[in-house]
Amino acid sequence: MNEFSIIDKYFNWDNDSTVSVGVGDDCAVINLNSDYQIVTSVDTLIQGVHFSSSTRASDVAYKALAVNLSDLAAMGAIPRFFTLSLSFPELDEVWLSEFSNSLKDLSEKYSINLVGGDTTRGPLSITINVTGEIERGCSIMRSGAKVGDLVYISNTVGDAAYAWKQIQGNGSVSSSAISRLNRPTPRIELGRSLVGIARSCIDISDGLEQDLCHILDSSSVGATIDIDRLPLSDEVRSYIKDSGDWCIALSGGDDYELCFSVDKKHIHKIKDIEERAQIKLTEVGIITASRGLIVNGFNAECQSYQHF
Amino acid sequence: MNEFSIIDKYFNWDNDSTVSVGVGDDCAVINLNSDYQIVTSVDTLIQGVHFSSSTRASDVAYKALAVNLSDLAAMGAIPRFFTLSLSFPELDEVWLSEFSNSLKDLSEKYSINLVGGDTTRGPLSITINVTGEIERGCSIMRSGAKVGDLVYISNTVGDAAYAWKQIQGNGSVSSSAISRLNRPTPRIELGRSLVGIARSCIDISDGLEQDLCHILDSSSVGATIDIDRLPLSDEVRSYIKDSGDWCIALSGGDDYELCFSVDKKHIHKIKDIEERAQIKLTEVGIITASRGLIVNGFNAECQSYQHF
Repeated sequence: MNEFSIIDKYFNWDNDSTVSVGVGDDCAVINLNSDYQIVTSVDTLIQGVHFSSSTRASDVAYKALAVNLSDLAAMGAIPRFFTLSLSFPELDEVWLSEFSNSLKDLSEKYSINLVGGDTTRGPLSITINVTGEIERGCSIMRSGAKVGDLVYISNTVGDAAYAWKQIQGNGSVSSSAISRLNRPTPRIELGRSLVGIARSCIDISDGLEQDLCHILDSSSVGATIDIDRLPLSDEVRSYIKDSGDWCIALSGGDDYELCFSVDKKHIHKIKDIEERAQIKLTEVGIITASRGLIVNGFNAECQSYQHF
Repeated sequence: MNEFSIIDKYFNWDNDSTVSVGVGDDCAVINLNSDYQIVTSVDTLIQGVHFSSSTRASDVAYKALAVNLSDLAAMGAIPRFFTLSLSFPELDEVWLSEFSNSLKDLSEKYSINLVGGDTTRGPLSITINVTGEIERGCSIMRSGAKVGDLVYISNTVGDAAYAWKQIQGNGSVSSSAISRLNRPTPRIELGRSLVGIARSCIDISDGLEQDLCHILDSSSVGATIDIDRLPLSDEVRSYIKDSGDWCIALSGGDDYELCFSVDKKHIHKIKDIEERAQIKLTEVGIITASRGLIVNGFNAECQSYQHF
């Protein structure tokens, strides 16, 4: 089976009419709305770095696309299309089939089309480049936070890091925590709801502290958050109560929840979004003029995820 | 040095004003011309598969971007922006600096902006996703060849494969042939000139036979080409004369020349382009109604590059 048969068999899905040419020419050709800007991001997952050899192909595919969708969510963008570069050491049709089905399922859920790709023999790795669109000038940047803004986090934090820690230590962990690790939910709907309301936003991929600090640095502001306000699942809350390991929540990555800042006057709009999108949005602190991040109630240091 | 320092130090170049947000937010945000379609493609280069550990970082960077630009060229598109996913086993600032400088040089030459990226620890590999734009409905597809079209090839073929073969066998090879292997020229200007003139086009990456067959399959036609007409450099001609190894020219990949088909009535326009773009364009055969590729004057079989 050569590259073209692989692509044709596993990755040549039906696309909608917004794509003029999909998989199978030198490039994909795509029509976009003229009043929109395009928004693009790329992420790579490598076996042994981002997932283990025991991770299911369906979970690998899910996560590879989900973490990219999460970047679109953090900008408030609408997913449009993606390309896939897949390298694997040997042809394993069972693996490929599971990978392809899972990728297709998630892409359909978020209406994002696979328009092109490359398959190569090499160590198992997946690079996905997503492209979305957003109304001109409306993307939510990391740089827009203002002094006095309230800082919010969606859902709960620490679950993915907790699951990872338990798996590594052969401890017990619920399937819902494992699901948070392997199948994070890209907050596309929430991101869209925050357009015109949030002044800054980021997705929590490397850990709350580190990612919030990206907002603070980009916006030239600081923040104070309260450790007692961090939204935690019962499982993580119980683990922290026993261990005192707050770092799970402060610097554990891979949750892909959104952290965003909002002008106080929009509090009622956040309540509306919370109800409409059926997602918990927790106010954890405030943007300050003095630079740096202060975590009230916490005096240790955590280590966030470092790519190198 | 963490990921963000690496990106800031090596990949945060000044971009032009067409890009609203570049490296350093969750996504890049880009303005596009509303009368255009966007054109996108992705290619991965992996050490040990596409280049050896002795290949210079500058050549790796050049080729990683050039092969992607070549895909845009084959569609007739204007390069606009690209993302980079770079994985390397350990931080080597000398390597990174050489890689970054070379990538920047080539990107400036073709006016294409780096807008986003991802760096990861892992086996050395480079994935570049290029995006260009083209006047609506004007992209040159593989599927447009018509019976009676003349088949053309730009410049010469076989040089890169010849250089690779000589290097592998420790034979002597000119620096110009090595340059064809390591520094292929993306035929962007030629591709642009062919918009509205060529009816089908592909870049020769996997070998003339295989790539021309993609045009034939997509267009539901066949072709006859004459082996005596294949445009060869003096070095490759001399090698073939001695060895009889026509496969170098017929199935040697990596030249990144364009192979395209043109209605006979446009012969004079091809002459004009040849003079204006200062590039040799050689008519090698004709598109036929009977399916398949016939190579007059050649009776053996060659093996084109297989990704698996």
